[in-house]
Amino acid sequence: MFKCENLQRGGAFKIRGASNLILSIPKEDLPRGVIAYSSGNHAQATAIAARHVGTCATIVMPQDAPRSKLEFTRAQGARVVTYDRFGENREAIAARLQEETGATVVPPFDHPMTIAGQGTAALELLEQAPGLDALITPVGGGGLLSGCALMAREIHPGIRIFGAEPEAANDTYLSFQAGKRVSIPLPDTIADGLRSTQPGEITFPIIRRLAEGILLVTEEELRATVKYLLLRLKILVEPSGAAAAAAVLFHKLPPGIGSIGVVLSGGNVDFEQLVMF
Amino acid sequence: MFKCENLQRGGAFKIRGASNLILSIPKEDLPRGVIAYSSGNHAQATAIAARHVGTCATIVMPQDAPRSKLEFTRAQGARVVTYDRFGENREAIAARLQEETGATVVPPFDHPMTIAGQGTAALELLEQAPGLDALITPVGGGGLLSGCALMAREIHPGIRIFGAEPEAANDTYLSFQAGKRVSIPLPDTIADGLRSTQPGEITFPIIRRLAEGILLVTEEELRATVKYLLLRLKILVEPSGAAAAAAVLFHKLPPGIGSIGVVLSGGNVDFEQLVMF
Repeated sequence: MFKCENLQRGGAFKIRGASNLILSIPKEDLPRGVIAYSSGNHAQATAIAARHVGTCATIVMPQDAPRSKLEFTRAQGARVVTYDRFGENREAIAARLQEETGATVVPPFDHPMTIAGQGTAALELLEQAPGLDALITPVGGGGLLSGCALMAREIHPGIRIFGAEPEAANDTYLSFQAGKRVSIPLPDTIADGLRSTQPGEITFPIIRRLAEGILLVTEEELRATVKYLLLRLKILVEPSGAAAAAAVLFHKLPPGIGSIGVVLSGGNVDFEQLVMF
Repeated sequence: MFKCENLQRGGAFKIRGASNLILSIPKEDLPRGVIAYSSGNHAQATAIAARHVGTCATIVMPQDAPRSKLEFTRAQGARVVTYDRFGENREAIAARLQEETGATVVPPFDHPMTIAGQGTAALELLEQAPGLDALITPVGGGGLLSGCALMAREIHPGIRIFGAEPEAANDTYLSFQAGKRVSIPLPDTIADGLRSTQPGEITFPIIRRLAEGILLVTEEELRATVKYLLLRLKILVEPSGAAAAAAVLFHKLPPGIGSIGVVLSGGNVDFEQLVMF
């Protein structure tokens, strides 16, 4: 069973966490705005959620983010500040802007409200498809996986939980094997939403406790899965969003799983990127 | 409101008409099989419907039909007979095969059972979205438009009905203006499902009586609409399937229409064709 977060507002699951956090900001703090740093989908989500509550959003984005994501974020009324992914630190830029403006930082994954928000994807999926044997989501910083794992186990304590990430961006896999957070160099993968260098301080202990394994997929498997979902299911899923589906289609799961919920986490991809597949 | 027939079994609305006709074949005739001629989507639909009732299907398809459509039709267990669109007559080939085998011909549009089947798309749309001011569908041979027009007017007598076709394949537009069926040379358009040379004998009088107008869209407008639906709605619609949406997006409708039902009639497109857009 696919949970189609590519059809979500803003084209990805990120609106869940961003909305949950922004709706929890005290009324007196709202006029100073919000700040987010993101490779794209969290940026769009923060812009939409900020507009919804009537505050202004500043978004720190890599200058080489997909053009569609930069444009969409600006179109939502957000101020976009770009940076060089290879030379500058986005957390530092966000911290400086925060100091200047007093805005509330909306972290992309490592915050309890963000994690809780992302978990609503699993809540809806298990309401619509109860009794699944397992659940699998893509994993970048771990917000989606940790939130969905908490929610799914609350509803259905026996459910088996898996994460999927690119071989080229295996920070959560390595951390899971080591039993502690491991950091990797900035990875190069077509899954631009999963380019995290280490799992979160809050997300990782949840993943370590609840997940059974982190499954790795190759770039070629991601491409083939995006094409399969496009041509057979007729839906557009971005490479990051297809990681969990790729793990299932390419038989990375252990045997004995009859039915599985697969989160397709986003669908924001440039046409120019798509035609390169 | 979009009616997403690209998400239908076989990737297009055609399964509705083919199933309705094949389910009406007398039991004693079924073992001799069915024959269809089609540029693609009707072929797949006939193959699926034949398999469902346990009979064999022979499909006459142009040899330059999209590869995915040829492959899918064969994968459904059908026997595919190819012909040259520019030199051979598909009706004649189907008639000869029919004579040899005694199979039942499943016409792509010009049959009451086919038309009635296609109309169920409008039935479902108006059940889910009652009170629409207007309904628009792509028009090739006219099965979808005539069936949906009959059904929509039955449910909602005041609804305004429109068809949309490519400028390059304007046989229904010309017929509508002339008040009688007009034939055009084999048209060249990326909307391969709308390459009919004249509207049907049964479909056209229905369209003439119930439709308010036939709206024309350019090849460029079709391409832009396919891209828009893909990148913003995250769904894959083939050029033929996007004709009605293109008419709406490019303001071809008369003023005064508040809400409109738009049939996205199919989503079968080769990746190689898509990347050429």
